[in-house]
Amino acid sequence: MYSVDKYPSKILQEAVEAIGSLPGVGSRSALRLALHLLGQPADSIHHFTEAINRLADDVQYCRTCQMVSDADTCPICADRTRDARTICVVESVRDVMSIEATGQYRGVYHVLGGIISPIDGIGPSDIHIRELVERIGRMHEEDAAVEDLPGGDSVSRGDIEIILALSGDVEGETTALYIYRQIEDKGVKVTTLARGLGFGDDLEYADTLTLGRSLTARQPFRP
Amino acid sequence: MYSVDKYPSKILQEAVEAIGSLPGVGSRSALRLALHLLGQPADSIHHFTEAINRLADDVQYCRTCQMVSDADTCPICADRTRDARTICVVESVRDVMSIEATGQYRGVYHVLGGIISPIDGIGPSDIHIRELVERIGRMHEEDAAVEDLPGGDSVSRGDIEIILALSGDVEGETTALYIYRQIEDKGVKVTTLARGLGFGDDLEYADTLTLGRSLTARQPFRP
Repeated sequence: MYSVDKYPSKILQEAVEAIGSLPGVGSRSALRLALHLLGQPADSIHHFTEAINRLADDVQYCRTCQMVSDADTCPICADRTRDARTICVVESVRDVMSIEATGQYRGVYHVLGGIISPIDGIGPSDIHIRELVERIGRMHEEDAAVEDLPGGDSVSRGDIEIILALSGDVEGETTALYIYRQIEDKGVKVTTLARGLGFGDDLEYADTLTLGRSLTARQPFRP
Repeated sequence: MYSVDKYPSKILQEAVEAIGSLPGVGSRSALRLALHLLGQPADSIHHFTEAINRLADDVQYCRTCQMVSDADTCPICADRTRDARTICVVESVRDVMSIEATGQYRGVYHVLGGIISPIDGIGPSDIHIRELVERIGRMHEEDAAVEDLPGGDSVSRGDIEIILALSGDVEGETTALYIYRQIEDKGVKVTTLARGLGFGDDLEYADTLTLGRSLTARQPFRP
């Protein structure tokens, strides 16, 4: 006797389970998406899966900043008009995209690829902190090499600035502090994002922590 | 100069576009899912895409009821304990799963694979109506063959019932009417789902159409 194992087809069931394993996709949505795909021509399905397979097979990471890239140097690091001595340290590619969308930043990035989170078993060695320290070391070596050239000591290449642009939660603050300890003696300027009320925010609806810190970190009024 | 085409990688962009082409998945969700997949081991990604590729490559449709199946006869049609003379006509596999979940139905199904919708360019020949008519014809032929056997005319195989279990919108009602016209002279009993207030529904919150039809189609009170 046929018992209702929910799915009339094991193939369908496995597709639903695969889709349902994505974060934020519930079993009803997964079924809806699987049935949508099932209704598509085979070519469309193959096109869909090939685009995703390329994430596994063809994506590279920029050897300088660790960002997702189609080559071993990403377009931002390859862009000579950007300030390569200002490095914004972020958790993920998504943060790079958010910052790029502001149009306010002309420096480069360093993508950690995660955040220190003991509860998830992610320690300092699981994210690209070592690569950041090495990157700073290489920049100093290049500076020294320039200074050794005849007349090179008169060339000022400017400070190196590391912007710790991590989230404001415990993991973000832990990671920022850990990185700071690794680089504080490397002769770099370390900054972090300004925090406070959002532009246009109403005091009435601000959370007390943000409002309190906004008060503590109050700034000169510029009329 | 690097211009922000939003994505640092064309491969990532194409994966986001592929995922974003799924119904109900917005571009932010698509990016989130693509970055999630990107963070997975290559094996997991391949496992994911293989499960989906099998929807294109390996799924079959039951030759009797047109339901998604792993073989040419689905488990429900193959189940001899079910009443093969009661056929519930539904739009999609999802409806089969919903009805099976009630545990109230012991007949079989006929999956149309769509609904008549002129606005979407879907006509009667695009869904499995012809297969339903042919299926009824085959059942009558089998009945006649049994009657021709010695003593066969004393064997009553019972009425064939076709339950039109389609949605209550214009497309569903159009499709139900079209099918009814095709089979009304085939000597089958044609029924449809009871409609009215849901069990436990509050009159106050019922929509007027449902409430009105519930009144018109009022039933004997069974204490």
